[in-house]
Amino acid sequence: MEHGFIAWAKQRASRLPKVKLGIGDDCALIEPWGTDSVVTTDSLCDGTHFVLEECGARAVGHKLVSVNLSDLASMAAEPIAVFLSLCLPKKNSGLIGAEVFEGVCEACEQHGVAIAGGDTNVWEGPLVVHMTAIGKAPPEGCWLRSGASPGDAIVVTGALGGSLLGKHLHFEPRWKLARKLHGLGIVRAATDISDGLGIDLLNMTAASRCGAQLELDSLPISEAAYEMAKITGQKGLEHAIGDGEDFELLLSVSPDAIETMPKEIDGVPLTKIGEFVSRTGLWSKSKSGIKQMQPKGYVHQ
Amino acid sequence: MEHGFIAWAKQRASRLPKVKLGIGDDCALIEPWGTDSVVTTDSLCDGTHFVLEECGARAVGHKLVSVNLSDLASMAAEPIAVFLSLCLPKKNSGLIGAEVFEGVCEACEQHGVAIAGGDTNVWEGPLVVHMTAIGKAPPEGCWLRSGASPGDAIVVTGALGGSLLGKHLHFEPRWKLARKLHGLGIVRAATDISDGLGIDLLNMTAASRCGAQLELDSLPISEAAYEMAKITGQKGLEHAIGDGEDFELLLSVSPDAIETMPKEIDGVPLTKIGEFVSRTGLWSKSKSGIKQMQPKGYVHQ
Repeated sequence: MEHGFIAWAKQRASRLPKVKLGIGDDCALIEPWGTDSVVTTDSLCDGTHFVLEECGARAVGHKLVSVNLSDLASMAAEPIAVFLSLCLPKKNSGLIGAEVFEGVCEACEQHGVAIAGGDTNVWEGPLVVHMTAIGKAPPEGCWLRSGASPGDAIVVTGALGGSLLGKHLHFEPRWKLARKLHGLGIVRAATDISDGLGIDLLNMTAASRCGAQLELDSLPISEAAYEMAKITGQKGLEHAIGDGEDFELLLSVSPDAIETMPKEIDGVPLTKIGEFVSRTGLWSKSKSGIKQMQPKGYVHQ
Repeated sequence: MEHGFIAWAKQRASRLPKVKLGIGDDCALIEPWGTDSVVTTDSLCDGTHFVLEECGARAVGHKLVSVNLSDLASMAAEPIAVFLSLCLPKKNSGLIGAEVFEGVCEACEQHGVAIAGGDTNVWEGPLVVHMTAIGKAPPEGCWLRSGASPGDAIVVTGALGGSLLGKHLHFEPRWKLARKLHGLGIVRAATDISDGLGIDLLNMTAASRCGAQLELDSLPISEAAYEMAKITGQKGLEHAIGDGEDFELLLSVSPDAIETMPKEIDGVPLTKIGEFVSRTGLWSKSKSGIKQMQPKGYVHQ
């Protein structure tokens, strides 16, 4: 099926932004732009990151683009081009491939990103989709996980928890917000929340060689977290800390800028939820005092 | 398993060339180098591109690097960095992941390429491995499939056919040869032979809006093609034309340069096997005259 599929895909993608040489040759060509290339790659597997029968193939395409752009957002990079690789199940391979590609196209159109190349395969296994995304680093440099210092505020975008109820498939990667925030020059480190606030915060502290203390009363808990809590018997707060795939940004903001930091950007709230501290590990501060925390995030096995 | 695996992988890859920011953050950073970025992506699936039980996971890692570097070779690009994404079967995931990574490391070390990032997943399905490779375009520009003109010689590297007997797992991607040949300025178009000489030549003629005529007596037929012929009852010639995954280069060489073209580079023969012609389609020339050919290549479904 590959040749017909590629011809169709090339045609379908012709409405999107273009790179110097896109779909159709052995490789793509992307012209230089003078700053670092920011590159990320992610795979999504049926049964682990989505359930094809429940969500449909188009939503898989959307999610694939969004998770990759979320990684670019966490470095404050501007997405330029994506590369798509499909491993399609034999049964309905043409239909599934076209639907995934349609979802990828819609998401890329929405974000102004080129589909520069890819690879299609049909095999005996379930659907696996891969993407590599390439972005432009801001001239002033990217955000890294390693820039946080004790005293910096921990800031999060949006609200957390319960993404399994739908957000994990349909979310807005925060790269536009990240670009605006980067321009203010107040962020010292960043990551995106994919494994869960607790785990991703712990990763940030490990990279920055410090610890973090959360103010539990400040956490922006999503409606979905409370919905999940009704199902699981846990607390909304626990879902906000432990659930994966929120794809919000987790930021270290310099303490002298926290007062002037905008309360929201493009309708997305920015909330201070604690501060980085010199003692290592993850700590919580609430009415009952300061306690060491377990991250309890969701890790895809 | 991801965190321990990443820590180990980062350590293992520390002997390889490096990019500005490699394994460990949300994205990698690659410094600009002034010419186009050449990007390719390929997935390999258990049962389609390899049989894990027969070849072992390390050979899969080698093949993954080689197929990607072969694509870069076909554009005359110099490989810089690769990104690896693993979907590991639950059973023995740690061992299989480590073996694939070891194979990838060995191949990258051999070619002087950085492993700049990746993604690991454990899932219910069989092994799927995915790679994106990024290379530097030569300042004079890349080879494309579309540059062939009627009258150009068709030239192939190495010998063709029977790759299933082993070469498809263990082959030398021809990027160093391609870089040397590019320096001579005699090649007008190129691709690599992945689907089979017939199909890949037809793709080149389609991109170049011309046809091709093979001189059947000139084809460099590999020993493996004759071995395969004993098994299948076909001719060695048929395997040389139809078998996929030779990963040799297929080149269009300007007619006034064919006499002075080196007969070999680094021990790899360069053989003229025909010429591009103005009538479209694929043609063969032999003692029995000129006939239209079917490409008969191997397509991965």
